[in-house]
Amino acid sequence: MEISLEELAQNFNLEFSGIKNKKVSGVATLEKANNTQLSFLANSKYTSQLTKSNAGIVVLSENHSDLFSGNKIITTDPYLAFAKISTLFQESQINYSGIHPTAVIAKTATIGEGVVVGPYTIIGENSNIESDTVLEARVTIGNNCHIGKNCLIKPGVVISSACHIGDRSILHPGCIIGADGFGLARDKDGWIKVPQLGAVNIGDDCEIGANTTIDRGTLDDTVLENDVRLDNQIQIAHNVHIGQHTVMAGCSAVAGSTKIGKNCLIGGGVGVIGHLEVCDNVTLQSMALVTRSIKKPGSYSSVSPLQETSQWRKSAVRIKQLDKIARKLNKLEKEI
Amino acid sequence: MEISLEELAQNFNLEFSGIKNKKVSGVATLEKANNTQLSFLANSKYTSQLTKSNAGIVVLSENHSDLFSGNKIITTDPYLAFAKISTLFQESQINYSGIHPTAVIAKTATIGEGVVVGPYTIIGENSNIESDTVLEARVTIGNNCHIGKNCLIKPGVVISSACHIGDRSILHPGCIIGADGFGLARDKDGWIKVPQLGAVNIGDDCEIGANTTIDRGTLDDTVLENDVRLDNQIQIAHNVHIGQHTVMAGCSAVAGSTKIGKNCLIGGGVGVIGHLEVCDNVTLQSMALVTRSIKKPGSYSSVSPLQETSQWRKSAVRIKQLDKIARKLNKLEKEI
Amino acid sequence: MEISLEELAQNFNLEFSGIKNKKVSGVATLEKANNTQLSFLANSKYTSQLTKSNAGIVVLSENHSDLFSGNKIITTDPYLAFAKISTLFQESQINYSGIHPTAVIAKTATIGEGVVVGPYTIIGENSNIESDTVLEARVTIGNNCHIGKNCLIKPGVVISSACHIGDRSILHPGCIIGADGFGLARDKDGWIKVPQLGAVNIGDDCEIGANTTIDRGTLDDTVLENDVRLDNQIQIAHNVHIGQHTVMAGCSAVAGSTKIGKNCLIGGGVGVIGHLEVCDNVTLQSMALVTRSIKKPGSYSSVSPLQETSQWRKSAVRIKQLDKIARKLNKLEKEI
Repeated sequence: MEISLEELAQNFNLEFSGIKNKKVSGVATLEKANNTQLSFLANSKYTSQLTKSNAGIVVLSENHSDLFSGNKIITTDPYLAFAKISTLFQESQINYSGIHPTAVIAKTATIGEGVVVGPYTIIGENSNIESDTVLEARVTIGNNCHIGKNCLIKPGVVISSACHIGDRSILHPGCIIGADGFGLARDKDGWIKVPQLGAVNIGDDCEIGANTTIDRGTLDDTVLENDVRLDNQIQIAHNVHIGQHTVMAGCSAVAGSTKIGKNCLIGGGVGVIGHLEVCDNVTLQSMALVTRSIKKPGSYSSVSPLQETSQWRKSAVRIKQLDKIARKLNKLEKEI
Repeated sequence: MEISLEELAQNFNLEFSGIKNKKVSGVATLEKANNTQLSFLANSKYTSQLTKSNAGIVVLSENHSDLFSGNKIITTDPYLAFAKISTLFQESQINYSGIHPTAVIAKTATIGEGVVVGPYTIIGENSNIESDTVLEARVTIGNNCHIGKNCLIKPGVVISSACHIGDRSILHPGCIIGADGFGLARDKDGWIKVPQLGAVNIGDDCEIGANTTIDRGTLDDTVLENDVRLDNQIQIAHNVHIGQHTVMAGCSAVAGSTKIGKNCLIGGGVGVIGHLEVCDNVTLQSMALVTRSIKKPGSYSSVSPLQETSQWRKSAVRIKQLDKIARKLNKLEKEI
Repeated sequence: MEISLEELAQNFNLEFSGIKNKKVSGVATLEKANNTQLSFLANSKYTSQLTKSNAGIVVLSENHSDLFSGNKIITTDPYLAFAKISTLFQESQINYSGIHPTAVIAKTATIGEGVVVGPYTIIGENSNIESDTVLEARVTIGNNCHIGKNCLIKPGVVISSACHIGDRSILHPGCIIGADGFGLARDKDGWIKVPQLGAVNIGDDCEIGANTTIDRGTLDDTVLENDVRLDNQIQIAHNVHIGQHTVMAGCSAVAGSTKIGKNCLIGGGVGVIGHLEVCDNVTLQSMALVTRSIKKPGSYSSVSPLQETSQWRKSAVRIKQLDKIARKLNKLEKEI
C-alpha cells in the first residue's frame, strides 16, 4: 500500500513539513530506509543515523527537526506515532477464511460471523467464538469457553475449559490458558492433588506472549484486567489478579493468589511470591524477587551487581560474613 | 452431584457437627459460597470471612469451630480434607471415548482397554498405552514409549521415543518429555552435538506442569521417582534424578546429572547447577542458586533482598566494595 | 550396527590399542557397559569406574591409559571422540518418508527432494523447504519461510512468516520462531502494539531447544549466526543478534536489541538486558544479570551465595544496611 505525507498527517492528526504528495509504501530503520520508506527517530542515541538517512519521510520530535532536511512528521512522541503508522503496512498472514475442513468443532459450539478457524483447530462443547476472531491453526479450545470479538489466536495455543478471553486480545504461539493451578495437600503417603475448579478470565485488548502459561484458579478465577500485556515465557499462577495496563517482560512470574495493581511495569525474570499485594504504579527491575507486599508506588530492585568472577568470589565470601562484619564494626565503634 | 454432611463425613472418615442430611452440590470460597456449597478455612488470615459465610457446610479445624454456627466438618487438616472432598465435584472435560478417527496410530502400537485417544493424537511404533489412560487431544507420542494406567495427558504434549510414564500421572498442556539433552563437545571448527541415547523415566502419581521440559539422558535415563510434582515452565536437564515426593514450583531448573533427594521442596525460579547432589528433606527458597552439593536437610536461600531502586543502587555499589570494606575493618581492628 | 576397534580408529583418525577385530554394537556408561559396548572416560572423577568396567572398548586419554587393560582408543579429547563415535549408534526415529496425507501444504510452497513432511504439518504460501529436511510431525510453518537442507524440526514447532533457518539446524519440540517481538507504545488510554515487521534469521548448524522462543524483529531481523546452540526454555527478544559458536544454557534470556558476540558461554538462568553489547569470548555464570555492555572477554557473575535460610536472613538485613556500614567505617577510619 502507498500513502502520502499529507494523508498520514491527517489520518493520525500530526504536523508535517515537506512535499505533501510524497508517497511511501513501507517502513524501515533510519540506516536502511530508502526513498520509498518511512522511518523514525525516538532515541537520541541514533541521531547520527538521522543526518545520513535516505528515508522518504522521517517521524521525529521538534528538537531533532533541524537535523533532517527531507520530509518530516513532527510529534512529541515519535515512537507512538510510528507504532500507529506502521500498522498500515502490516500484511495479514492468514491464508484462510471460514472454517477449515480439518477443524474438529463440537456441535454445541457457536461460531460468530467472520470467524476464521484454521487447520487442525479443536473447539469444545458449548464454547462460543465471537465475530471476526481468527484461530490461526492448531488451536485447542476446551468446553464452555468464551472468546471475544476480533481476537487473534496463534498456532499451538491451548485454552482449557470455561476460560474467557475478551475482545481484541492476541494470544501468541504456544501459550497455555487454564492449565491446572499447582495445588497440592500432603497426606501421610504422599501428595494429594487439589482440584482446580475455577477458570481464567482475560480482559479486552490483552496480549499473551509465546509459551506463557496462565493457570486456572482453585475456586475463583485467575484474572487479567483489560490491556494487560504479557511477554513470552511468563508464568501466572492460580488465583492471581493483574490490574489494567500492567506490562510484564519475558520470563517473569507471579505466584498464587498475589494481586498486582494497575499500570505496573514488571521487568524480565522478576519473581513475585504468593499471597502478596503489589499496589498500582510499581516498577520492578529485571530479576528482582518480591517477598513482601508493596504499598508504595515507585521502582524496586534486588539482584547482586555483575562483577568479574574472580572479584565476585571475594564479594560472595564477604556477603556470608556480613553479619559478623556488622557486629565487629559496632563493637569497634563502641570501643572508640 | 449432591452429597450430605453425614455421607461426606463417612466417606472421608471425618467428624461432623450439624444437620446430618444437609446436602451440598458444589464448593466455593467462604466469601462467595451459598447455602448449597461447601467451603473451608485452613488459614487463620481468613477467619473474618468464616463468621460471615453463607456456606452450607464448612470444613475447619477444632480451634476455629466456635466461630461458625452452621454445619461443620472438623479435622486437623482442613486443606487436605477439602482437597479430597472437592474431587467429588470435579467434572470430566473429556468429550470423547475410544479412538478419534483423526488419530494417527502406528500398527505396532498397543492400546489398552478404556483408553481415550483424542483428535490429532499421534502414537509411534511399538508404543504401549495402558488401560484407562486419556490422551486428550493433539498429543504426540514417539516410538517405543510406555504410558501407564489412568494417566491424563493434555493437549500439545510431546513424549519422544523410548520414554516411560508410570500410572496415574498427569501431564499438563505443552510439556515436552524426552527432548535431547543439551550435549555439546567442542571441535576445532565449532560444536559437535553429543547424541542423547538415553530416555526419560517418570514414575507413578507424578504431575508435570504446562510447558515444562524434561530432557532424555545421554546414555542412562533421566528419572523422576513416584509422586514427583512439577509446576509449569520447569527445566529438567539430561541425566537428572529426582527423588520421591519432591515438589518443584514454577520456573525452577535442575542442570545435568544432578541428583535431588526425596521430600524436597524447591521454590519458584530456583536454579541447581549440574553434577551436584542435594540430600533428602531440603527446602530451597524462591530464586536461590545452588552451586555446591547440599548434605544437610533444612532450608536454604540466596538472592539479595528487595529495596527501592535508589537504595538498592547504593547497596550494589557497596557489594562490589565488600572485600575492601572487610579488609579495612580488619586493619582498623588491629590498630585498636 | 557393529563396528570393530580398528575401523573406529580409522574412521575417526584415532590411535588404538588391543584386539583390532574387537567389535562393539552400542555405547554405555563405564558402570553399565558390557563387553559388546563402548564407553569413555573424560572426567577424572569417574576413574574408579574405569578399573571395574566391563566395556568392550574404552575411549580415554593417555594419562588414564594404564588404568585399563582392555581394548582402548587413546585421544587427547575423549568426550569429543565419544560424541563422534556414538553418532554411529543413533537410530532414526522417523517413521515416515515423503509427505503424509494429513499435511496441509499451500500450493505455492516448494518442497525439496527427500524432504519428510510428517502428520499434521502445515506449510504456508511461498515457503520453501530444501532437500532432506525432516518436519517430524505437527510442525506449523507460515508464509514466505525458507528452511535449509538437512534440518530436523520436531513436533509442535511453530515457525512464523518470513523466517529463515539455515542448513543442518535442529529445532526441538515446542520451540517458537518468529512470534511478535514485545513492542508497546503508551498512548493516553493505554498501550498500543508496535507492529513487528522484521523476521528471524537462523544460520547453519544451529540448535534451538525445547520450548525456546525467538521473536521476530521490529523492522530488521533477529539474527542467530552459524553454530549457535540454545538449550530449552530460552527467550531471545526482538532485534537481538547472537554471534557464531555462542552457547546458551537453559532458561537464559536476552532482551531486545542486544548484541552477543561469538564464542560466548551463557549459563543457565542468565538475563541480559536490552540495548547492550557483549563482546566475543565472554562467559556468564548461572543466573547472572548483565545490565551494562561488556567489552572485555572473561567470566562474569552476580547472584548472592547460598546460605542456610537463618544465616541468609541476617546477611539480607545487612545488605540493606551496607551503605550505612560503609559510611560508618569511613568515619571510624578518619577518627583513628
